[in-house]
Amino acid sequence: MNYRKIYNVLGSILLLEAVLMVLPVMVSVIFRENIRTALSFLITMCILTVLGLIMRARKPLKDTFFARDGYMLVALTWLFMSALGALPFVISGAVPNYVNAFFETVSGFTTTGSTILTEIEPLPKSILFWRSFTHFIGGMGIIVFAIAIMPKTEGSAMHIMRAEVPGPSVGKLVSRLRASARILYAIYICMTLTLVLLLFAGKMPLFDSICTAFATAGTGGFSVLNKSIEGYANSYCEVVISIFMVLYGVNFNLYYVTLKGHARHALKDEELRWYLGTILAATLIITLELTVTRHPFGQSLRLAFFQVSSIISTTGFTTTDFDTWPTLAKTILLLLMFLGACAGSTGGGLKISRVAILVKDAKRTIKKAFNPGRVEGIKIDGRAVDEELVTGVATFLAIYVIVIFISVFIIAIDGHEMIPTLTSVITCINNVGPAFAEIGPTGNFSALSDLSKLVLTFDMLAGRLELIPMFMIFSKYIIPRKYA
Amino acid sequence: MNYRKIYNVLGSILLLEAVLMVLPVMVSVIFRENIRTALSFLITMCILTVLGLIMRARKPLKDTFFARDGYMLVALTWLFMSALGALPFVISGAVPNYVNAFFETVSGFTTTGSTILTEIEPLPKSILFWRSFTHFIGGMGIIVFAIAIMPKTEGSAMHIMRAEVPGPSVGKLVSRLRASARILYAIYICMTLTLVLLLFAGKMPLFDSICTAFATAGTGGFSVLNKSIEGYANSYCEVVISIFMVLYGVNFNLYYVTLKGHARHALKDEELRWYLGTILAATLIITLELTVTRHPFGQSLRLAFFQVSSIISTTGFTTTDFDTWPTLAKTILLLLMFLGACAGSTGGGLKISRVAILVKDAKRTIKKAFNPGRVEGIKIDGRAVDEELVTGVATFLAIYVIVIFISVFIIAIDGHEMIPTLTSVITCINNVGPAFAEIGPTGNFSALSDLSKLVLTFDMLAGRLELIPMFMIFSKYIIPRKYA
Repeated sequence: MNYRKIYNVLGSILLLEAVLMVLPVMVSVIFRENIRTALSFLITMCILTVLGLIMRARKPLKDTFFARDGYMLVALTWLFMSALGALPFVISGAVPNYVNAFFETVSGFTTTGSTILTEIEPLPKSILFWRSFTHFIGGMGIIVFAIAIMPKTEGSAMHIMRAEVPGPSVGKLVSRLRASARILYAIYICMTLTLVLLLFAGKMPLFDSICTAFATAGTGGFSVLNKSIEGYANSYCEVVISIFMVLYGVNFNLYYVTLKGHARHALKDEELRWYLGTILAATLIITLELTVTRHPFGQSLRLAFFQVSSIISTTGFTTTDFDTWPTLAKTILLLLMFLGACAGSTGGGLKISRVAILVKDAKRTIKKAFNPGRVEGIKIDGRAVDEELVTGVATFLAIYVIVIFISVFIIAIDGHEMIPTLTSVITCINNVGPAFAEIGPTGNFSALSDLSKLVLTFDMLAGRLELIPMFMIFSKYIIPRKYA
Repeated sequence: MNYRKIYNVLGSILLLEAVLMVLPVMVSVIFRENIRTALSFLITMCILTVLGLIMRARKPLKDTFFARDGYMLVALTWLFMSALGALPFVISGAVPNYVNAFFETVSGFTTTGSTILTEIEPLPKSILFWRSFTHFIGGMGIIVFAIAIMPKTEGSAMHIMRAEVPGPSVGKLVSRLRASARILYAIYICMTLTLVLLLFAGKMPLFDSICTAFATAGTGGFSVLNKSIEGYANSYCEVVISIFMVLYGVNFNLYYVTLKGHARHALKDEELRWYLGTILAATLIITLELTVTRHPFGQSLRLAFFQVSSIISTTGFTTTDFDTWPTLAKTILLLLMFLGACAGSTGGGLKISRVAILVKDAKRTIKKAFNPGRVEGIKIDGRAVDEELVTGVATFLAIYVIVIFISVFIIAIDGHEMIPTLTSVITCINNVGPAFAEIGPTGNFSALSDLSKLVLTFDMLAGRLELIPMFMIFSKYIIPRKYA
């Protein structure tokens, strides 16, 4: 393992985090907040800078960088960023308990959106801004950001990107990595600016528009209101956010392809079709059920479309307490939590393309039992999928299920009801945000024990980084044996 | 597909089912029941005989018998056996609704033990006997039984056995198939006789002892009392049944090996160790939780051991309403439902050996990410597991998860609460029996819609036959295109 190199890059990223904290400080100044809040960011910035400089002090001896180095870098980056990013919450007194602050920050960076806060609105604006901003940073990935802006990027950065970009394979954009990272971020920033303008035009306050746009962009789900998007009582904004949640759940490569003038090619993408088809079907069924049981058609459609796009994109905003919905609607939302959005988007979950591969593999296995002679490959977008990838996806499911089962077992020690016990893990590992019952749309995660919160923190990171990197921290490699 | 051969064997099996119905008729006579009950069996026997003879009328043109023929035979056998085995329930008036009777019979043959009955005790003894007897028949597999007693068995029977014997691979006994089937059944019958004697010696009425032994042997769980084993209020019997549930969850090959004098070899079996270790750990944790929260230690231990062995062996007997237990205990039981018993036992679930392979595959994948150079095989019992089997198990998990998700979606249409919606599918596909909340130990499946019951019926069969064969009925092969 090339630890010098890993710590070198990690140092740069911590310096970057210090720079990013300038924004909440500015917010604090603009809103003339208590000096303690601004200080909490300034102190954290000092710590980040000192730590970053120490890490960068020793130049790497060699430049080799393997996949495992990438995993390790990603795991350490997300842990350090969260551990230090939690400090302003604690120092400012907004979230006095460090475990809570850590949970909240991990929930932010991993774009989960689960919160331990019972009251959100009384917090200082700068803290709320930082909380939402972590979604924006985490959405596209901090290391991808670093690759985009740093002057020199080696070809080895591929390994880093593979570990941080969600989905079973990195896709078509990787050949020129730095250019790709810049394109991705340019699309991401433009979409987010558009969203800010649209929300502001819809009479949402500017500060709220920015924070909400951050949380939508990262498919995170932190809101600056206690009642989430429902608090604005603004149907126009609800519809705008619904559409953007769907958009952020799309593979960003497709936007790039569209910009290149191949929109038709993008529209033929199989994953996109499954994604949009699922949203359509789920919205229709839930609309139907809500229309029959409680609301007029128009309202049902609006509520259903918002919740479906919020859950499938793993954002987690709410416009109603869906925990009170009928079972079919709730079950559909629960299943969508597992499904998640498209690979290469900012969304979480298993990812549509992974589920598509699993379904096709299942179909093939059943067919093969009846016709052992015919061995056929799996095709996505008309092209054969590498068998190694298929096996990898099946094993991914196994690890995912094992992590869920072990987590549920530990959370159960807390003694909460079955539904919150089961769904807390599901919502966290899939980076959704709200779950059901006590931790549903009107609840929060504050009642859980510290142990449970740490387990869920692990699940959020494991979900966001797609399992493998997080196991690094349990491996013997975490402590460098040979520092070289 | 060799349809003539398939229908030929199926015909023989239906004749066998007719013969087996002699037993409930005898019970009816012994207890001097209403003539209608005995008649319901006699009518069914006639139907079985006529149908069986028709199917056997045309001799097969060729003797080739492939894996797909085996799957088809197994799927059709279990469907026909259940569809016709349900008739006595309907004709006798015990279960007037055919869908209910079909559900109950499938639950019997698949050794699930989920019931649609609200009142069990008022039913005629012969009906109760038949209900429990289906567990005994289904436990070891009806086709394995046929292989054991029929005069000529072709080498191709291997394919049948592979489809009916639970577990990822058939194991060591298959070289001499008919002998193996006889050995398995001999062990099975001896153990069951021993259990009958032990229960009868413990002051359980003879009829109840026999029925309870049948249900224990098949790891089924139908009881002749409304309150299941709790109804006897007999700690001796509870302990005896607990131990036998554990024993029936062990791979029967190990008993064969022990009989051959290699007990030490059997005790070293890795699956057995995981199995016993899990039972021990789960029992201890639940005992601890119950001791702290409600009962004295002794009672806690007895209740915990009984429920753990009942659920892990997928029997489903109860001695207490475990739905009122604390969350940790309930969660452990829920996780044990997925785990299930050993391969080659009469129990259901994923099977320990399959989970062991998944866990080892997961570990290996994580290791490989850190050390890509080192490719290592998976070992069970010190021997390398075929990579094709590992891939097969991973795909098995995928199909299993997909079936669960689709089933949950359909059951959710009924609009019951989330817990019964989720756990009804889990308990049925794993052939356990009781679930939680309304369909927990004190409840039953009668409130579900016919559609839900049929979905759960499919799940029970899919679980018992380990997924693949049941998809036969959706395939185009179900209707012979070329009858040859």
